[in-house]
Amino acid sequence: MRKAASKNWQFRLHEIIYESNTPAGKAFDVGLLIAIFTSIAVVMLDSVEHLHNQYGDLFLMLEWVFTIIFTIEYILRLICIKRPLSYVFSILGIIDLIALIPSFLSIIFVGAQSLLVFRALRLLRVFRIFKLGHFLTEIRFLSTALKGSVRKISIFLLTVLMLTIILGSVMYLVEKRENGFSNIPESIYWAIVTITTVGYGDISPVTPVGKFLAAVVMLIGYSIIAVPTGILTHDLAMLARDKKELPESCPHCSREGHDLDAQFCKFCGASLMRS
Amino acid sequence: MRKAASKNWQFRLHEIIYESNTPAGKAFDVGLLIAIFTSIAVVMLDSVEHLHNQYGDLFLMLEWVFTIIFTIEYILRLICIKRPLSYVFSILGIIDLIALIPSFLSIIFVGAQSLLVFRALRLLRVFRIFKLGHFLTEIRFLSTALKGSVRKISIFLLTVLMLTIILGSVMYLVEKRENGFSNIPESIYWAIVTITTVGYGDISPVTPVGKFLAAVVMLIGYSIIAVPTGILTHDLAMLARDKKELPESCPHCSREGHDLDAQFCKFCGASLMRS
Amino acid sequence: MRKAASKNWQFRLHEIIYESNTPAGKAFDVGLLIAIFTSIAVVMLDSVEHLHNQYGDLFLMLEWVFTIIFTIEYILRLICIKRPLSYVFSILGIIDLIALIPSFLSIIFVGAQSLLVFRALRLLRVFRIFKLGHFLTEIRFLSTALKGSVRKISIFLLTVLMLTIILGSVMYLVEKRENGFSNIPESIYWAIVTITTVGYGDISPVTPVGKFLAAVVMLIGYSIIAVPTGILTHDLAMLARDKKELPESCPHCSREGHDLDAQFCKFCGASLMRS
Amino acid sequence: MRKAASKNWQFRLHEIIYESNTPAGKAFDVGLLIAIFTSIAVVMLDSVEHLHNQYGDLFLMLEWVFTIIFTIEYILRLICIKRPLSYVFSILGIIDLIALIPSFLSIIFVGAQSLLVFRALRLLRVFRIFKLGHFLTEIRFLSTALKGSVRKISIFLLTVLMLTIILGSVMYLVEKRENGFSNIPESIYWAIVTITTVGYGDISPVTPVGKFLAAVVMLIGYSIIAVPTGILTHDLAMLARDKKELPESCPHCSREGHDLDAQFCKFCGASLMRS
Repeated sequence: MRKAASKNWQFRLHEIIYESNTPAGKAFDVGLLIAIFTSIAVVMLDSVEHLHNQYGDLFLMLEWVFTIIFTIEYILRLICIKRPLSYVFSILGIIDLIALIPSFLSIIFVGAQSLLVFRALRLLRVFRIFKLGHFLTEIRFLSTALKGSVRKISIFLLTVLMLTIILGSVMYLVEKRENGFSNIPESIYWAIVTITTVGYGDISPVTPVGKFLAAVVMLIGYSIIAVPTGILTHDLAMLARDKKELPESCPHCSREGHDLDAQFCKFCGASLMRS
Repeated sequence: MRKAASKNWQFRLHEIIYESNTPAGKAFDVGLLIAIFTSIAVVMLDSVEHLHNQYGDLFLMLEWVFTIIFTIEYILRLICIKRPLSYVFSILGIIDLIALIPSFLSIIFVGAQSLLVFRALRLLRVFRIFKLGHFLTEIRFLSTALKGSVRKISIFLLTVLMLTIILGSVMYLVEKRENGFSNIPESIYWAIVTITTVGYGDISPVTPVGKFLAAVVMLIGYSIIAVPTGILTHDLAMLARDKKELPESCPHCSREGHDLDAQFCKFCGASLMRS
Repeated sequence: MRKAASKNWQFRLHEIIYESNTPAGKAFDVGLLIAIFTSIAVVMLDSVEHLHNQYGDLFLMLEWVFTIIFTIEYILRLICIKRPLSYVFSILGIIDLIALIPSFLSIIFVGAQSLLVFRALRLLRVFRIFKLGHFLTEIRFLSTALKGSVRKISIFLLTVLMLTIILGSVMYLVEKRENGFSNIPESIYWAIVTITTVGYGDISPVTPVGKFLAAVVMLIGYSIIAVPTGILTHDLAMLARDKKELPESCPHCSREGHDLDAQFCKFCGASLMRS
Repeated sequence: MRKAASKNWQFRLHEIIYESNTPAGKAFDVGLLIAIFTSIAVVMLDSVEHLHNQYGDLFLMLEWVFTIIFTIEYILRLICIKRPLSYVFSILGIIDLIALIPSFLSIIFVGAQSLLVFRALRLLRVFRIFKLGHFLTEIRFLSTALKGSVRKISIFLLTVLMLTIILGSVMYLVEKRENGFSNIPESIYWAIVTITTVGYGDISPVTPVGKFLAAVVMLIGYSIIAVPTGILTHDLAMLARDKKELPESCPHCSREGHDLDAQFCKFCGASLMRS
């Protein structure tokens, strides 16, 4: 009997913490997100010098309050799940742990507290908020398209990186140390700043030849920005078309690709009408 | 009889102020837009110090002239509409009121006049100018597509924001206060400046590790700019396809997907002609 | 007889100057482009101070040589065309004249020579070079798509402009004169620099609130850059589809929009086969 | 017998160096890429002043080690291929040679060593790594699309260049030398920096008219960035469609446009199945 009660208790806790269908589950998710946001806000504000001087003690106290809350949450997550290790070694589980460690480390090592910024990683839980809404289809659609584009975009990024290494090296030869291009890695940094059109202006060409080369780099960057966009748009279109065609598989021979309004399978003649 | 005349007068005024089909209505719209543009130009020029010193009195007078014109317009709008409150609490109504208040406030509070810049909001009325032209279809098409993309783009923006919080926090640890990254909010500001490829250069990394991380941030920003474009282009295409298909549903069996110019339903043979 | 010979001479000249099918016409076009490029290069180099000091006289001479060449070309164009006025008032004709005037003006007014930079407008003739190649289809395709997008993109630009006016005005109130936002036009200039992601950094926010607002402006700019791209891509796709469908008009009832591989008109039953 | 053995030896070496199907070939490719990366890293680090002072001798030794390795590789490539000259004059062959020369030149000329940065060009071999994976289809797809777009994008770039020449010249007249626009080439450089939205801020307009013109340039740049993206996306879509349709031409009547999975030609009834 007792065991059943305990199981029941565990089951209810699991429902609250891991699911968000019940009102209690929703409330828990919203409350957790508020806590995460507030704790990150505290870390942020504490990094501002004059606020730290004035409210440092308050911030320290709040940080410990949040650490205790998140520690309890972490323990509860471990208790109410059937296989705790699967949570511990999941991405979210590791992030939850990383968000806890700095506070405890700061007791032993001075300065470890600054690692609290990694608590920002917990913001990833914010995507749970979409579970509450109806964003799931959009997220799935986008992430499928992005996964499909990753290969092509990584080829693109590699090409861009190689270009910046070559262009950066050439600029180092052209502009020399006295104009800010003090070494090749620095020049490559400049090339990336330029080709991505960020353009800080902390390093910029001085000699006429350097300016000419820089203009070439800019025009290259301006033109090839089209590539990832082109790839992604194309993959989104492909995906949308495939998705559209998918439900049209023949219920008899299960072959796909019929016209959207076909009434009979063009391979076996079976009716495609969903009655 | 008098009441009818009054009604008639109100009706004509309503036609002039709220519609733009009649010549008088068009003239009113164009005149109002000119007045708005001029009044904003006056506020702008008044903010330029040496012009303020020279023509300050003229500008003050003009501002009051426009305030009186807009006050009369506001009162007329209230009079000639059947349900004045629906105008008062509409977006355009609130903007019209906000554009009036600062001038009157400036009698009591010194400096309230600088709030006149909110008169710029009245520029939203500029979109009325398109009613005069034939831009309506385009605006409707664009805004429908944008509305459909808002969800996906807001997921994208949230991801970007989270990225900047995490990257900004890491840069704060790497670059330290002496290099301009004086606190975490400042670092996040830097991350947004960098990932959006704006790149002011007021804060820029100094250490080699910081520059390496900055280069990573730039390449991320350069790659993911593809996402909103891909989404919107895709949604525009979807919309164009759906729009094309929507009006073609068969009036008899109500099935959709006929060619744009088909004359008979290809499922039940009923005529598709809209008589 | 003489008149015929003169006509023949005129005709041949017209062929050389205005057409580029004959070898002589091609040679003239290439030669003219080289002359334009060289003359612009001379104006450019003359603007560089130390080159002007050293080679000023040479540059002056060359400028007069080119002025004489272009004057002769202009007169020949007038002579060999049937209706000279149609050339004089065409866009290219006006540009050709504008490119000539500054040299002659410089005899009377000192400094008028600096207007020679408008000779750069003659570069528009460079597009003739494409006539020599096979770029015409691409140019026509692109310009048709751009013309179709102009309306939508102008709505977009107007929205962006209004946003920058409102955001610039707000930033003027927030940042005040002492932080570089010295007046509203200046603030609007900053807003445009930021929303287009150019980011010079000559004016940049200093206060925390200003930085927060700037970050919002950047994220807006970063998101809405998708809009013109989406519009243009969409219009290109529409155009390509329409172009594809166009040649399929029925030779009998001339109605369009048949499937690409249809063999009979779906409206009148006439054969669509091009024999 | 000997000759056969030699041929066999040559054949095996060819398989290892030029192919990557065998385990030995894969190992060679991976090893070579690591050597290239390390050698470039050494050149980069050597350019950093304080590292050069400390480890200069080590770097020099490593550079010679890599030069010897790459020389041996170059000789082996010549030996094991049937027509060595076809390798010598191929793009990769020329790059391999260019990567070797600077080291040997540095024995005679002091400073020639800085040309070692051209070794970065050998990074092009990195694309071999994709042969090991399954990126080939994507690369082929992308490069075909890019090749198709090159014409249109070059028209676009030429238009942008002409715009920058004209706008740069006008800005030179407006801003004058004292505001950083010291000559026309410099002004054109500024126009490119601005229109590509890089925005270093090393040169930026000072006068009100200049700022207004700069804002116009920015808005132009912001709008026309859509063009290359639109072109590429469109060409990708065209390519995907054509690729889909191409293999489907009927082997009997050779007409195209069948559905991807059609089994019989819809024009002549011949089987489309590739046996």
